[in-house]
Formats: sequence, C-alpha cells, structure tokens
Amino acid sequence: MSNRAHNFSAGPAVLPLEVIEELQHALPNYKNMGLGLMEMSHRSTAFDDIIESAKRRLRELLNIPNSYEVLLLQGGASLQFYMTALNLLGPKDTGAYINTGTWSTKAIKEAQRCAHVSTIWTPETTVFNNVPTDNDYTIPESATFLHYTSNNTIFGTQFQTTPVSNIPLVADFSSDIASAPINVSKHDVIYAGAQKNLGPSGVTAVILSPWAVERSVTVNKLRPVRPGGLPSMLNYKLMVDKNSMFNTPNTFGIFALDRMLAWLERQGGVPSIHTQNIEKANRIYSILDTSDFWVPHAQQDSRSLMNITWKIQNSKLEAVFLAEAEGEGLKGLKGHRSVGGLRASIYNACSLESVEALASFMQHFEQRHG
Amino acid sequence: MSNRAHNFSAGPAVLPLEVIEELQHALPNYKNMGLGLMEMSHRSTAFDDIIESAKRRLRELLNIPNSYEVLLLQGGASLQFYMTALNLLGPKDTGAYINTGTWSTKAIKEAQRCAHVSTIWTPETTVFNNVPTDNDYTIPESATFLHYTSNNTIFGTQFQTTPVSNIPLVADFSSDIASAPINVSKHDVIYAGAQKNLGPSGVTAVILSPWAVERSVTVNKLRPVRPGGLPSMLNYKLMVDKNSMFNTPNTFGIFALDRMLAWLERQGGVPSIHTQNIEKANRIYSILDTSDFWVPHAQQDSRSLMNITWKIQNSKLEAVFLAEAEGEGLKGLKGHRSVGGLRASIYNACSLESVEALASFMQHFEQRHG
Repeated sequence: MSNRAHNFSAGPAVLPLEVIEELQHALPNYKNMGLGLMEMSHRSTAFDDIIESAKRRLRELLNIPNSYEVLLLQGGASLQFYMTALNLLGPKDTGAYINTGTWSTKAIKEAQRCAHVSTIWTPETTVFNNVPTDNDYTIPESATFLHYTSNNTIFGTQFQTTPVSNIPLVADFSSDIASAPINVSKHDVIYAGAQKNLGPSGVTAVILSPWAVERSVTVNKLRPVRPGGLPSMLNYKLMVDKNSMFNTPNTFGIFALDRMLAWLERQGGVPSIHTQNIEKANRIYSILDTSDFWVPHAQQDSRSLMNITWKIQNSKLEAVFLAEAEGEGLKGLKGHRSVGGLRASIYNACSLESVEALASFMQHFEQRHG
Repeated sequence: MSNRAHNFSAGPAVLPLEVIEELQHALPNYKNMGLGLMEMSHRSTAFDDIIESAKRRLRELLNIPNSYEVLLLQGGASLQFYMTALNLLGPKDTGAYINTGTWSTKAIKEAQRCAHVSTIWTPETTVFNNVPTDNDYTIPESATFLHYTSNNTIFGTQFQTTPVSNIPLVADFSSDIASAPINVSKHDVIYAGAQKNLGPSGVTAVILSPWAVERSVTVNKLRPVRPGGLPSMLNYKLMVDKNSMFNTPNTFGIFALDRMLAWLERQGGVPSIHTQNIEKANRIYSILDTSDFWVPHAQQDSRSLMNITWKIQNSKLEAVFLAEAEGEGLKGLKGHRSVGGLRASIYNACSLESVEALASFMQHFEQRHG
C-alpha cells in the first residue's frame, strides 16, 4: 500500500486507506458468507443491513430529522437536477434558482425542461468568483422552492451560511456534504453525488423532507402524461416506498459509502472534520495571501473549504508547477478547463499530511521561481 | 480466498475469482499511479483507457457493427424501460411489446408514461412459463419498434431465436447478454444491467443502431416540453456525444465490467462460453426431466440457459432443500417470491464445478427424500 500519492483530485477523489482496505477485504468473501460483496442479492439480509447502516450513519452524522427520508440512488447530481424539478414543480410552477456556476447553470437547464425557472441571482462577471448573501437577491413569493449550489467545485466558492428563505430550500451539496455541519431542517431537499466526500462515484444521496415527499405525490397527479404519471425511476415517493431499491442499486458503492461514513465517525464526526477542514484550507489560503506571486480565484468572502482555486501571476509557471508537483507525488492539481490555473480539492479524506506536503511544495516553488 | 460458496444468486451474481483479485489489486494503487481506481478523475487518461477498453471488448465479443454506439450508463434496465420509449417514440407513436413476464410488464408500464403501447402477446396463463414464437403474434405496421425481453430471470424462460421483425427491434438482454451469440445487427437497441453476466450492479450497457441515435434527435424535437426537449441524463444522443460521461459514471463498476469482459475473452469468447452454458444447463435440466420428484417451471421449448426454475412435487420439501443446500455451501437457490419454488441462476461466471456440485446435491436429495 506504499507509494500512495498526495491526491487532490476534484472527484472521484481520495479515500482513506482504511476504507480501501475494508473494500478489498469484502470483495472475495463478505463476513465469511462465502460470497463477495459484489456477488450477493440486493434483497439479501446482509445487503439490507448495509443500506440501513449507511442511512443510519448519514442520519446521525448530518443530524437529519427523523421525519426526513434518506435515499441512495444512481445517476449523480445531474439526474437530480431534473428529478428535483420533475417531482416538486407542476408544469405551471416556478422554481427560483441562484446561479453560482457551472452546476447551477446545469440545474437550471434541466429544470426548464419540465417547469418554469426564475434565476434570481447571477454574478456580475462570468468568472463566478463569488456567491451572494441574503441581501443580494429577492425570492419571488410565487416560487415553489429556492435552489442553490452550496459549494462550487469548479470555481472554488462556497456559501458561508445557509440562505435565509421563506419558501422550501433545495440544495446541491455534492461537493461539501458532511464536510461541515448542515442545518438539514432548514432544507426540504439536499442531494449529493458521493464521489467527493462520501465515497465512490455511482451513488447519490438524496435527503427529503415530508413536504418534498408529499409534493412528489401531488405533482404526480398534475403532470399531463399518460397513465401513471412520473416515471418510476424518477419518482421520489416510489423511491421512498421502495427504500431506494425499486431496482438493483449500486451495491458495492453503497457499501463503500457506509465504510466511508464509519471512517468519518472515527474522525469524531462532522464538527471535528470541519475543524480539520478549516485548518487544511487555511494552510493553503494563507500562502496564497502572502504574496502576489499567487492569484487566488475566489473572492475572500466566498472561499470554499473544499476546492481551492488559484493562478500564478506569471501564468507560464503553471505548467511548470504541475510538472514539478507531479514529480513530487502531488496529483490532480490542474484547474478545471473553464477556469484554468490550479486547483487543490481537499475533501474530508484528504489528509493534513497531504495538505502540508502541498504547502511545503508551494513555498519552495515560490522561492525558486518568485 | 478459500471457502467461496457455490453461488447461484440471480443477481448481483457470482464473479470469477480472477476478476475479484484484479479489483482488489486496483483499489489502493492502480498501475503504480499512486491513486486507487476509485480515487481518480473520470476525465483522466487512465480512466479513459478503461472505458474505451470496456467498449472495445464489448464490441468484439458481441460482434457489434462499427456503425453502432455503445454506452455504459447508470440506472439499470429499469431506467432503460423509460429511456427507450422516451427517445424512440414521439408522444403520438406506438411501441409494440411482447409481454413475457415481470420485466416486460414493467417496460410496458414505463413506456406508457410517454407514448402509446400495443401489447401484442401475453401468455394464456399468468405463470409466464413460455415465450412466443414468431407465428404467435402480429406486429402492427404502424408501430415504431418491437420490444422483447430476451431472458426472463424470474420465470426461467428465454427466447430461443431472435424474433423476426420488419420494424426496429428493441431488446432487454439484462440476464443473458454475452452468454450466447446475439445477432446485434438485427436489433436497433439492446440494453442490459451488468450485474448478471457483465460484472457488478450500477452499470448498464446500451447498444444503439444509427437509426436509434437519429431517432432520439427527431423525438427530441417532437416532445412538447419547454426549451431543450429531453432531459440530459435521459437523452441517448447526448450520452453518445459525451461518450457516456456527461456526468461522472460509476468508474469502479466500469473497470469491473472491463475485467469481466477480459475474463470472458480468456474463456474463448461468446461461442465458447455458450457451449459451456448449454452443458451447465443440460446437467440440471436432465435431472429435472428424469423423475416426477421435480417439477420444472418453464415449458421445454422456452427454457432459459441462465435461470433454471423448478418446484418439488412435495412442496414441503422445498424448505428442506434450501436448508440442506445452504449447509453444503450451495447458495441463492430460492425461487423469486412471485413464482416460489427453486431457482438456479447459472450465468457465465457460474462454474461447471458449481453446477456439478448442485447436480450431485440434487441427486442425493432425491435419493434421500424421493
């Protein structure tokens, strides 16, 4: 297991070695059942224990109210962009959307396929280097919900507080779920692809308030489609009734998520990992703020604890930075093509040791090239 | 790795131990990159090589025409029930469906949500113990496609030949893909969840003819929805254009599929595994046919090579059979709740050794209880 690099991939992202070893161990023969974890029925008692464990851990770690439902689905946040609108908005209803970047833009586009959208905030420039505060927009009273993207992986921005809203709140937490405390009870829908903080790709956590579940029943009757309304695989209420197993789920992915959550518990839970995440992010931001050799992308009041984005003043040095970093075992630091520059994704499982290695490399790099 | 049981699970199903070991090996550090396979970007060269390899192997193994597209998606066959109809049928169009059991029934139900369905064949009884031949139904000329379920996991029936059709053919091959040669060029859409013959749950193979891809472009313009037509995640043409990576796919699942296909190549490919599958199935059917102690479920001319379903004349012995089998390390033999009785799923990766162990157990069971 040696020679593991320092992995700053934006996702799928680094997993703790302990989790990797648990996955290896479960593959040929899970709990001495004689079957590997990938090779057993999703209707088996053993798998039922796993999915229930994953849901229970997520409930406890995120302090999800008992009345809320937890689903573990396929299709990623990209399918939730459509499902949230399809389940919560009748064809004549409007969702209010805050547009803070690529993922918000995509969420808006999918919602427009089945309902009306009111985009209530977009940044003044196209570089998406900030998120709004509550005073920056007005929520239309006629809107059914307010949608926001809590953390913007590509641009390295993050809402610093939960938006205040007098209508139901729907949020894409794909890149910062379980990295800091969330006030779940202020939200009606929270969804997140697992591949950043919760485990592997191919699993999507969806948290639904009683209102959201009931709303999907109402909307099912409103949609002018042939017998039966919403497609089964896209129907929240049906997924709730079938405990996320209307059809075969990504069983190995759900096991990996459960192991990842157990690891998070061993770290002391969300408040404790949040403290570590602040320390990690500050370590890098403090370097970016020290000299104008570096040019941070996100505005200071919008900075993400998960994805740190920056450029080098002398942009020719960015390729050098990436090549030298790679040579030192620091991987995944290239910025997203739509922003350019550099990006360090430091999700829960990115260790302080990896962040220290990056910080040290950055300081030496500046000394040599500054 | 010892103490692996004989696994007859209907799916997720047994994988070859060689594949399991490759998955274990790739988890902490894939090809000495310093990153595990679950921990790298789906946009990386390493992962691109994997998805291209998986698609190439599937093309070669199934003899897929070059003009066809191969997708590796999420959501299982259950999402394809809706996607096939959504992409191929305009709201006024009709799909013709052959109903051979639970999965066909579900496919019909989802198609009805977005278009018209003509069910052109259902069995005379509700036990679904047979499939039709070409003379048993008439395909309406006005239908856009004919849909069939090639193998019925629950009932243990299987089409013995490709239905003759003068309209495009759409088929759910979830439980028998790559188990016997398929005449792909006679089909316009073939879809299959991977968790039976192709690897783990959470990956769905979709094979599209040029007609099917073009049809999704046409239908996109017909559907009376707001700007943009079909939802992105449900749009075949978009999935083709994005090479199955509009969003993050189930990367580990796709790697497992590639390893499973490489194993299948080492077995000599599809014709060779087909010969083995015939031998395996005959071993069990010949026992079922020897005495009236056993009561096979499927009609002889509709028998599946993948899922063998039967009862014991003295039905009280079925619980005894399952308990004793479990004690001998023969697992997953309980019939589906909608049929009852017993079922042995003997997909590609179920070894002849496991089938021999089952055959031997059955013979001794009959001697003791007959």
